[in-house]
Amino acid sequence: MAIDLRKAGVATELIGVDRNTANSERAVERGLVDRIEAEDKAISHADLVILAIPVDAMSQLLPSILDNVKAGAVVIDAGSTKSSIAKAVAHHSKREQFVAAHPIAGTENSGPDAAFSGLFRNKTNIVCERDKSSEFALTVALRVFDALGLNTIFMEAEEHDKHVAYVSHLSHVSSFLLGQTVLDIEKDEKNIFALAGSGFASTVRLAKSSPEMWAPIFEQNLEYLSQALSEYIMHLQKFHYHLMKRDTKELHRIMSGANEIRRVLDGIELKTQSQQTVTNN
Amino acid sequence: MAIDLRKAGVATELIGVDRNTANSERAVERGLVDRIEAEDKAISHADLVILAIPVDAMSQLLPSILDNVKAGAVVIDAGSTKSSIAKAVAHHSKREQFVAAHPIAGTENSGPDAAFSGLFRNKTNIVCERDKSSEFALTVALRVFDALGLNTIFMEAEEHDKHVAYVSHLSHVSSFLLGQTVLDIEKDEKNIFALAGSGFASTVRLAKSSPEMWAPIFEQNLEYLSQALSEYIMHLQKFHYHLMKRDTKELHRIMSGANEIRRVLDGIELKTQSQQTVTNN
Repeated sequence: MAIDLRKAGVATELIGVDRNTANSERAVERGLVDRIEAEDKAISHADLVILAIPVDAMSQLLPSILDNVKAGAVVIDAGSTKSSIAKAVAHHSKREQFVAAHPIAGTENSGPDAAFSGLFRNKTNIVCERDKSSEFALTVALRVFDALGLNTIFMEAEEHDKHVAYVSHLSHVSSFLLGQTVLDIEKDEKNIFALAGSGFASTVRLAKSSPEMWAPIFEQNLEYLSQALSEYIMHLQKFHYHLMKRDTKELHRIMSGANEIRRVLDGIELKTQSQQTVTNN
Repeated sequence: MAIDLRKAGVATELIGVDRNTANSERAVERGLVDRIEAEDKAISHADLVILAIPVDAMSQLLPSILDNVKAGAVVIDAGSTKSSIAKAVAHHSKREQFVAAHPIAGTENSGPDAAFSGLFRNKTNIVCERDKSSEFALTVALRVFDALGLNTIFMEAEEHDKHVAYVSHLSHVSSFLLGQTVLDIEKDEKNIFALAGSGFASTVRLAKSSPEMWAPIFEQNLEYLSQALSEYIMHLQKFHYHLMKRDTKELHRIMSGANEIRRVLDGIELKTQSQQTVTNN
């Protein structure tokens, strides 16, 4: 975000706040931020605060951050859950200076060295509780999102959490546990090396993600994630049952049904390509 | 294979055999093969037969194919299971003309239009029951595998089936059922469109794979796949249990353990890069 907001001229002076000293130093070295400041000082004079920290810390810190920001400042978060943070500031006197957002982009890597330009281009951004933010705060936030190339849509916080449980959080859980299962069995890692050409690498990519970031997401979205996970386990068990019965017809039916995802994903790729064409023109 | 064996000069006259007329015509149009012939005719005069069909058809057809090949001809298969095909020809009088192979490469696409040059470069190839093939057949087969850029290793058929159950077949099952779960819930497909930036697309890629190819693989590798699937479901259920207990420490422990896969996969990427460097030089 820092790289692309500076490029776009939206941010002219960038101040970093991080509890990790090594990451702070590296962020300055890489030119992501101009300097590091203490949290209180930085927040008290910033025009725009972007919060990108684990979602449990987000809900804890946001009320006091809003206490400290100056009049006219705008605070945006980038967390993967939205109900919890919405509740944390529901009755805050400066609630309207805050815009609850979820730019859906990222890699399995984290820290200042994982930053690169263009991460957010043509990705979806979900803004929740639009009507709780002031028109001014929304305008500033949309300038930020547009500069990053995000396509912003609006949703209620509960609705957001339910959808991301299925489409994003469940993918992460399935990948983490696939990684664990294979590591457990294949004690001789050379076999994973040799056999991983077979699609394993892409299926297990998300298992590299940060536990510090994901454990709080899973816990905050416990209810919907638990539904999604129960359903996933149920489908796996049904498949296992038909496999053991050698019920080829039913296995075919299940896989052909899952093949429908091709049409859905091709739609996404088409959409992304056409947007890129527009951008390039 | 046809594209790259012709390029390498290993194959000079390529004959296609396919029960699907449209695919046959398209293979000639694309120049993958020079012409199409009836199965019996093609097999009776070929120097080299490469079998790339669903693994159930493979076990059924291989004995009669071996009956029909001329003396000195070599037959190679490219199936994802090896015990079943090994059993099918264990006592065949021409067993030594056959080389049981599994080049571990492919995409979620199939048919002649999915063919491209370089698919096998730097991928692993597993040859099973090496001692059941004649020295001549092995030499011919290794010329073919080397021309494709494959790194060939040797394994017993049972050992092969066990390892691929965990590293390849389980990935496919997890992806098929993840696709089904999300399609089931997200009746409103627009949400899948909007939210799929979040790693979902890579985790679910294998759910696009062909049921005609994968149902027989799963059934032939039922025993090992069932073990792998039970273990995967058990890990998912354990995770679910700790999630419901909000046992953050245990969730962390599981995810940090799964993070180990990064080291393993980075090793693979390093290996692939260094091989590519060697190739480019």
